[in-house]
Amino acid sequence: MAKHVRNRVVVERVRPEIDAGRFPIKRVAGESVVVEADAFADGHDAITCVLRYRPAGGEWREAPMEALGNDRWRGEFVVEKLGPHEYTVAAWLDVFASWQRDLRKKVDAGQNVSVELLGGAELVTKAARRAKGDKRLLKEWAERLEATEPDPAAGLAPELAELMARHAERRDVTTYERVLDVRVGPTDAAFSSWYEFFPRSFGTLADAERMLPYIERMGFSVVYLPPVHPIGVTNRKGRNNTTESDADDPGSPWAIGSEDGGHTSINPDLGTFDEFDRFVARAREHGLEVAMDLAFQCSPDHPYVKERPEWFRRRADGTIQYAENPPKRYEDIYPLDFECEAREELWAELRNVVDFWVDRGVRVFRVDNPHTKPFAFWEWLIGGVHEDRPDVVFLSEAFTRPKVMNRLAKVGFDQSYTYFTWRTTKWELTEYLTELTQTETADFFRPNLWPNTPDILPEHLHHQGAPAFMARLVLAATLGANYGIYGPAYELCENIPLAPGREEYLNSEKFEIKKWDVDDPHSLSDLIARVNRIRADNESLHSDRTLRFREIQNDNLIAYTKQSPDGSNLVLVVVNLDAEHIQSGMLHLPLGELGIDEHASYGVHDLLTEARYLWHGEWNYIELDPGSIPAHIFRLRTRLSREEDFDYFS
Amino acid sequence: MAKHVRNRVVVERVRPEIDAGRFPIKRVAGESVVVEADAFADGHDAITCVLRYRPAGGEWREAPMEALGNDRWRGEFVVEKLGPHEYTVAAWLDVFASWQRDLRKKVDAGQNVSVELLGGAELVTKAARRAKGDKRLLKEWAERLEATEPDPAAGLAPELAELMARHAERRDVTTYERVLDVRVGPTDAAFSSWYEFFPRSFGTLADAERMLPYIERMGFSVVYLPPVHPIGVTNRKGRNNTTESDADDPGSPWAIGSEDGGHTSINPDLGTFDEFDRFVARAREHGLEVAMDLAFQCSPDHPYVKERPEWFRRRADGTIQYAENPPKRYEDIYPLDFECEAREELWAELRNVVDFWVDRGVRVFRVDNPHTKPFAFWEWLIGGVHEDRPDVVFLSEAFTRPKVMNRLAKVGFDQSYTYFTWRTTKWELTEYLTELTQTETADFFRPNLWPNTPDILPEHLHHQGAPAFMARLVLAATLGANYGIYGPAYELCENIPLAPGREEYLNSEKFEIKKWDVDDPHSLSDLIARVNRIRADNESLHSDRTLRFREIQNDNLIAYTKQSPDGSNLVLVVVNLDAEHIQSGMLHLPLGELGIDEHASYGVHDLLTEARYLWHGEWNYIELDPGSIPAHIFRLRTRLSREEDFDYFS
Repeated sequence: MAKHVRNRVVVERVRPEIDAGRFPIKRVAGESVVVEADAFADGHDAITCVLRYRPAGGEWREAPMEALGNDRWRGEFVVEKLGPHEYTVAAWLDVFASWQRDLRKKVDAGQNVSVELLGGAELVTKAARRAKGDKRLLKEWAERLEATEPDPAAGLAPELAELMARHAERRDVTTYERVLDVRVGPTDAAFSSWYEFFPRSFGTLADAERMLPYIERMGFSVVYLPPVHPIGVTNRKGRNNTTESDADDPGSPWAIGSEDGGHTSINPDLGTFDEFDRFVARAREHGLEVAMDLAFQCSPDHPYVKERPEWFRRRADGTIQYAENPPKRYEDIYPLDFECEAREELWAELRNVVDFWVDRGVRVFRVDNPHTKPFAFWEWLIGGVHEDRPDVVFLSEAFTRPKVMNRLAKVGFDQSYTYFTWRTTKWELTEYLTELTQTETADFFRPNLWPNTPDILPEHLHHQGAPAFMARLVLAATLGANYGIYGPAYELCENIPLAPGREEYLNSEKFEIKKWDVDDPHSLSDLIARVNRIRADNESLHSDRTLRFREIQNDNLIAYTKQSPDGSNLVLVVVNLDAEHIQSGMLHLPLGELGIDEHASYGVHDLLTEARYLWHGEWNYIELDPGSIPAHIFRLRTRLSREEDFDYFS
Repeated sequence: MAKHVRNRVVVERVRPEIDAGRFPIKRVAGESVVVEADAFADGHDAITCVLRYRPAGGEWREAPMEALGNDRWRGEFVVEKLGPHEYTVAAWLDVFASWQRDLRKKVDAGQNVSVELLGGAELVTKAARRAKGDKRLLKEWAERLEATEPDPAAGLAPELAELMARHAERRDVTTYERVLDVRVGPTDAAFSSWYEFFPRSFGTLADAERMLPYIERMGFSVVYLPPVHPIGVTNRKGRNNTTESDADDPGSPWAIGSEDGGHTSINPDLGTFDEFDRFVARAREHGLEVAMDLAFQCSPDHPYVKERPEWFRRRADGTIQYAENPPKRYEDIYPLDFECEAREELWAELRNVVDFWVDRGVRVFRVDNPHTKPFAFWEWLIGGVHEDRPDVVFLSEAFTRPKVMNRLAKVGFDQSYTYFTWRTTKWELTEYLTELTQTETADFFRPNLWPNTPDILPEHLHHQGAPAFMARLVLAATLGANYGIYGPAYELCENIPLAPGREEYLNSEKFEIKKWDVDDPHSLSDLIARVNRIRADNESLHSDRTLRFREIQNDNLIAYTKQSPDGSNLVLVVVNLDAEHIQSGMLHLPLGELGIDEHASYGVHDLLTEARYLWHGEWNYIELDPGSIPAHIFRLRTRLSREEDFDYFS
């Protein structure tokens, strides 16, 4: 129960706050954190409310908070550097402001305020005693207020208000009961474009280097490699995931470990550590981060199986438990037992694995099936890595129930795969992306949108050829500040499923070496390059926070805008979701909200085709032919746009 | 950061939870608490989730929680007795259920499960070792599972599932990180009908006793008296709140304290303590609780002013600060300084005041202007009283900003006045009552709806006579399980404001003795009696939780239902908000949702007029004439209704 405290101000409902402060919100360096809180006192006294923030362990700093009405306050700070930050809200009675406000009401009502002025003089005198500077000035004001001839104008003077605010008495300050955390990651935790490919389809890692200029030309920022470790031979899977394999079947890269080594070894077929290191260095020269796959599981031939048998579960017959999702069995994979008695050593070893690759220059990890390992493990692992290296990025590959995916994001993953892969209708996309970007989820879950992966050729890509691939690419790359594709399958529009209605690729690259002709004239690589160029040039596409869906009167057309924080960069995307027919409809833009002059025409520039139009008013006609490009990515001129971006119209 | 814990189950988002558990939810004895939580593990293992609850300090008990889908679970417990209770949620892996589910999938797929059965035998053997009873039975099952000839049917047996659930291993139980509180109050904290009157208008307290049978006849449960203490003479207000008073002006009862005493004295004009005690006892004989007014403020003549001058603020000229809301001054009132240095003694004295009256048999308090005293004071005071006497009820008379009103409810007030007094349109009533009853607010804020008070004759009652008073009465009494009126002004339809557009009564009873003719044939007392009888007879009206507004195709008509927890009692209210014209419209009832057979006609019984109708289907016609009674209160027959309530139709 409350003791006899004097604090009269209450601070509650501070947002963002994830699970009562149990988890940090996520931001990247340079990003701002907008904080709101309810703050109020009993009675009618004025209050002052401030936002307090700091890098964890650093000096607290303060930003003002502004009253929004209904006792809600808002303030903002920018996180400058990587690593953990903290924030909270403090508020106190503003005695002098209350006094001045009441004085004004009494003066306006023609009341005698001589005693009130003496009361004000007391406040100013106390401030003079307290103040480090301005002592003389404060004393002079106190004398004016005490003058025999009452001088209400002195009491009401804005200069006095300002002076007193500077020397405000912070008595009985109420600080919100929790200090809240921010995990500040590197810029590419929030804005990145991933290209996944199997280096072995190009030979060794040295051979695969020839993909780097190609991937750079397409404008990606991350090149993600499936596991590069030795592959088990026991129960190795053959082509198309069959349980029988030939001697020349390369096996699934996710069946990690053989007599050649485990998670800290390189598959000899891919080369040596020298070649790996050179690949990473070359990638960086091409502006690409190499993302490694963390798949914490073992083939039956993994050295751990012999050396640390206590890290595995046993069946009742004494054999090691293979992976299963009954009735499916994955006898080429042994899961690790994260709950085993020796878990402390197991967890430490897995941390060593991450550190090993970080020390070799890897900064980005795609984590395989994190939802089949304990949340507590990930919180411990990622937390520990981030403590030492806040620039490391972890992408969660969990396609599972929503609350499990959210929890993984809360415990530390910087990015997460999403259901985007299966969301195809306007309603689905609108609902889902609104949830991801406009609710509390946006503060801890960073979506990374993939139209395909080596595991998933979604059904809507099976039948309609390039237009479907083009539309899904534009959607992924503009709905999501983070997105990725599995190539060259994607740009070559590989779309043959294992069987009708199945999501597995026929002749999946997971189980065999593929030959890709990346110079195929039908490749979408030029379109992809253009889309990534547009992403790079338009700040509005670097974040998902400002995503807003717009009304367009045709359910086969979806329209949305994104806008940069300062409002100067405004992009409008319209996509035809029907890959087979021309679709058209009237689009509505709320010009006032977007910062576009409602009374003048405004230039729109299609960054995909370089077409430019002059639009008028809130309603405009859109028509998209999947036979050419099934999308517009318009840059729109706002009141704040830089002139040179629109010189065509000027 | 998480240590190497083994707990794989997560429990989060437990609801209800007020401000991360900072405040209790409110229930009354016998009421149930429905709790929901997200609970899930990594992977695909089944989990068990239970609700844990207890009277504070008692033994924990458990109720099962049921999976609602999407990893949401729901359970329920009943709070039997008064005082603080606690609840939380626990969950753990259900190893045997997971095993059995996987076994079924494998059996269905025709797989050899001999090793699986041995694994099951291990689980059952371990259970046999652990179990207090059923040891032999468990061993027998284990033997069946171990038999040389595999017997999958044994492994899948529901009896075995049941047996193993009884002896489940609770390893690595995850308990929600907070234990949440329930304040359990008396029944009349949630269901009460208040009648406020000024006893002095009937003479002494002994004279006022004659009102008790009258109030009982109208069916009220609480009789609330404005302050009964001595009234100050210095700056006493005259009739109509004038600053000049005659010798025979009785003064405002809220200007408490004179040389005759203060907050623990009785105004000699009202009588002695003997008379007070008799009034309370007589009231109880008539089924009425007496509610006292707690107005923690003093007239300049209050004994505290002389005895404890340090409890008051001083102006700069040394005089005591009177109450003000600039430019208004209330020079007959000195506020207490709850922040003063001697506050510990001040707060203790005010606690003594409450205890004094509780010891005299008062159990219900209406607290005047609590929003002008610190929240911490109320939390301390009410918390302390409830610790000793959980049956005491505090009503907050705070008509102020929404967040301040909510905070007062959170810190302990059992009931709160509301904006109902000014909400008149269908949209306003629907929005406001939905917020109060269907959001988190309902768990800590109990509305008490007043169509009038001595301070407020709202403008919509000024002009339209009885029909407006009738409509507002029915709204208050059926929208709110708690409601009250200020009488006899209300039942006599007193509606003359101090001036056009003002909310003060002309010749307000706050400042003068009034003469009331409660036998006036135009009095609404019979209607009030009938409405209170309907409230008493219909359990659906004893709570606000099931309030749902229904579509009716006329904005002057408002319709809503309430239903008892078991579904048997269903009441439909329709009110004509236009006090001057007949209004009619089609009403829609979702019969399936209400438990009414959609294919038969159903009886509806107007409890106000005794009219009975047979309705068909979801749409029915409503017409209400303010010239007779501007409301229906229908009882509807549901599949669960008791037959005798509808014998008219049978």
